[in-house]
Amino acid sequence: MQQTHAIPALSREDQKRLDDLYEMIQHEADFFIGYPCNATFDYSPLFGFLSHPINNVGDPYVPSNFHLNTHSFEREVLDVFQKLTHIPEEDAWGYVSCGGTEGNMYGIFLGRELFPEGLVYYSEDTHYSVNKILRCLHVRNIMIKSDPDGRIDLEDLRETIRIHRDVPPIIFANVGTTMKGAVDDLVGIRQILDELAIHQSYIHADAALSGMILPFVDDPQPWDFDAGLDSISISGHKMIGAPIPCGVVLAKKTHVDRIARSIEYVGTMDTTILGSRNAIAPLFLWYAFHTIGLEGYRQRVQYCFEIAEYAIEQLIRIGCRAWRHPNSVTVVFDRPCDAVISRWQLAVQNDIAHVITMPHVTRQQIDRLVSDIAQSKAAANKKEQIYETDHHH
Amino acid sequence: MQQTHAIPALSREDQKRLDDLYEMIQHEADFFIGYPCNATFDYSPLFGFLSHPINNVGDPYVPSNFHLNTHSFEREVLDVFQKLTHIPEEDAWGYVSCGGTEGNMYGIFLGRELFPEGLVYYSEDTHYSVNKILRCLHVRNIMIKSDPDGRIDLEDLRETIRIHRDVPPIIFANVGTTMKGAVDDLVGIRQILDELAIHQSYIHADAALSGMILPFVDDPQPWDFDAGLDSISISGHKMIGAPIPCGVVLAKKTHVDRIARSIEYVGTMDTTILGSRNAIAPLFLWYAFHTIGLEGYRQRVQYCFEIAEYAIEQLIRIGCRAWRHPNSVTVVFDRPCDAVISRWQLAVQNDIAHVITMPHVTRQQIDRLVSDIAQSKAAANKKEQIYETDHHH
Repeated sequence: MQQTHAIPALSREDQKRLDDLYEMIQHEADFFIGYPCNATFDYSPLFGFLSHPINNVGDPYVPSNFHLNTHSFEREVLDVFQKLTHIPEEDAWGYVSCGGTEGNMYGIFLGRELFPEGLVYYSEDTHYSVNKILRCLHVRNIMIKSDPDGRIDLEDLRETIRIHRDVPPIIFANVGTTMKGAVDDLVGIRQILDELAIHQSYIHADAALSGMILPFVDDPQPWDFDAGLDSISISGHKMIGAPIPCGVVLAKKTHVDRIARSIEYVGTMDTTILGSRNAIAPLFLWYAFHTIGLEGYRQRVQYCFEIAEYAIEQLIRIGCRAWRHPNSVTVVFDRPCDAVISRWQLAVQNDIAHVITMPHVTRQQIDRLVSDIAQSKAAANKKEQIYETDHHH
Repeated sequence: MQQTHAIPALSREDQKRLDDLYEMIQHEADFFIGYPCNATFDYSPLFGFLSHPINNVGDPYVPSNFHLNTHSFEREVLDVFQKLTHIPEEDAWGYVSCGGTEGNMYGIFLGRELFPEGLVYYSEDTHYSVNKILRCLHVRNIMIKSDPDGRIDLEDLRETIRIHRDVPPIIFANVGTTMKGAVDDLVGIRQILDELAIHQSYIHADAALSGMILPFVDDPQPWDFDAGLDSISISGHKMIGAPIPCGVVLAKKTHVDRIARSIEYVGTMDTTILGSRNAIAPLFLWYAFHTIGLEGYRQRVQYCFEIAEYAIEQLIRIGCRAWRHPNSVTVVFDRPCDAVISRWQLAVQNDIAHVITMPHVTRQQIDRLVSDIAQSKAAANKKEQIYETDHHH
C-alpha cells in the first residue's frame, strides 16, 4: 500500500472499546448454536488482499476495465456450484452475491422479467425477507399454507394455481426452510404444473443452507436443476462459513441474457443486482473448496447429522419434543424460557425454537444447553409447586 | 476460533496461484487512477474480527438476538454521517449498506412506497445502475437531458414535470455524477417544484463520492438535507476507502417507519434491504473516523484538489482539453487511445475519459499518465505524417 497519507493510531480509549467488542464477540461465539452459520473457518492467509481496494464489479464472465478483481477465482467457485447443482454447463450463469436475499431477489427478478404478468407462490414458512423482496419487486404474489412440518401444502398450491391459470406461476421453493429445515416437494410441484397443463412457469429455490448439505448425502430430496429449477440461491456464510455474508446465485444463462445491458463506462455487461461486489468473498469460497474440499464437506455434514441426532436424544431425555427433517441439521424443539433463548441466541417462532448443528457445534455445547433447559424447567416446576402450596394454605 | 475440524493447507500450486493474483493486484494498483476508490487505508488491526461469523443482520437501532454484531459501532458511524449531512437528529435513520446501488435502491424504494403512483426523474448522466434499480423496483420513470457539463437540464426537468403534474415527482439527484463529477442544482430543482405548486415530492441524492468531499469544503454546492433531501446514499469504499464495497444510506425516519415489518424470529424489525449485512464494514468506517478523523479528511480532500489541478495543468500542457467541476476530484479530458485506457484502467464515455484524483494518487502517477498520452499522440501524429507522405507519393 502506498502511504501518501499516514494513518494515525487509535487512542487508548478507542482501542479499549475495540478490545471489549472483540471479547464480547468471543464470549458470545461460545453460545452460538441457534443460527445456520458455521464458525469453523480460518481465512487469515487471505487477509493480505484486504490492503487493496479490490472490487468484483459487474459480471464475472465479462472482462472488466477495473483490474483489481478476483473474477477468475469467482468463476472457479461458480464451476464447483454448477456441478453440485447439476445445471448444464453450457446453460450456466451466476455470480457470488452478498447473501441469500440478493440471490433470492435475483431469482424472482428473473422470473418476473420472463413473465411480467406472473404470480409468485411461496409458503408461509418462507423467510421473511422474501416478503420484502416481493414488495420491492412489485410482483403479484400469494402466500400458500404450509404443512405442519414446514413444507408447502401441495393441495393449497394446486387449488390456488388452478384459480389463476391465466398467468404463469413463479414458484419460490424452499430447499430447507429457516425455522424447520423443510424441503418443499419439487416433484409434487412439477406434477401440479403438469396436471394443470401449465407450460410457462419459473421455479426459484432458496437453498441457503441445504444447498451445501444435499450434494453430500446419499439420499437427497429432489432439490436442484435436475428437479426442474430455473435458478437457485445458496449461502456462502452458512455451511461453508465466512466472516462476511455471501452466497452464490445460479441461473439458466438463457434467462439472464434477456436482462443484460451493455454499459460502456465500466467496460462490462452488468447483469448483477448490486454492481460493486466485494472481491474477497469469492476468495474465501475458493479457499474453502481448495483446502477443506468436497470430501471434507461430506465429512462435516456427517458430523453435523451426528450432533443433530445427539441433540434430539438429549432434549427428548429431559422431556422436550425434538425432531428434524431427513438430511437436516435444524433441530426443532419446544420453545424454552426467555433467559435460555437470549443466552443461546436461539431463533424462535410461536411455540418452537431450533438449534442448528453447524460444524462448530459440539456435544459439550448441546449438553450445556440441555442442562440450562432442564434447570429452567425444574425452576418453573418448583415455582408452580410453591404457588400451588401457597394457594392451598 | 474453535477448531472442531482442522483446515488443511493449500497445495503448493494453489498457493502459487494466490501469490500470482496478489502480485497482479499489486502491479495494477500502481495504475489505479481511473476509479473513485481511495487506496490509502490500513485496516489490519481489525482483521481479528474476521475469525468469527459476525453479521449485522437487521436494523442497527433495534436489539437483535444475533449477538455477534457490531451494531453499536455502526450507530456511531451513522451519527457522524447524520451530522455531516445535516439530517435532523430526531428524524434520522440509516444503515451501513454494501454499496451505492443498495443505498440508491433504498432511496427510490422509500420514495415509491410514499408515492406508489410517483414518477422518477433522473438525468442521462446518472449511473447505469439506476436503470437497473428502476427496472427492479418497477417504478415509472423518465430520463431527463443533461447539460453538457453533466448537470440535469432544469428546463427539460421543468417541462417534463409540468406535463405530469398529476403524479408526485421522485427526483433522483446526482451529487457528483460518475463521469463528470457534476452536482445537480438542488436549489433549481426545488424552485421548479415550488413554481409548479407541487407539494408532494421526494428527493433522493446519490452522493457516492461527493458526500465525503462537500462536507469538507468552504463553498459546497447545496447537496444535503438542508437542501431538501429525503434520503441520501454515500459510499464508504470511495473517499474513505475500504477493501470491501460499502456505504451508508440515510433517510428521514418518518418515511422509514412506514415500511418497517415486525419479524419475530430474528427478534428484530428489519427495515434494511438485504437482511444479513457484513459487520466488518461498519468497523472499517468507525476506524477511519477515529484515526484519520474529520480534520484528516479535510486535509485529504485539499490534497485531492491539488492533484486534480496539477493533472489539468499537465494535460493542457500537452494539448488535451481537461477540466473539472468546482469541488470535484474528477478530471475530465479527451479520450486517449485504447492502450492508455487499458493500461490506466480509465473509465471512458464517448469522446471523454476521466482520472479521479483520490488520496492515493500522486503527481508521479499523473506525470506517467501524461507522458503515456503524449507519446501515444506523438506516435499517432507520426503515423498520420507517414500516411500523408505515402499518400503524397
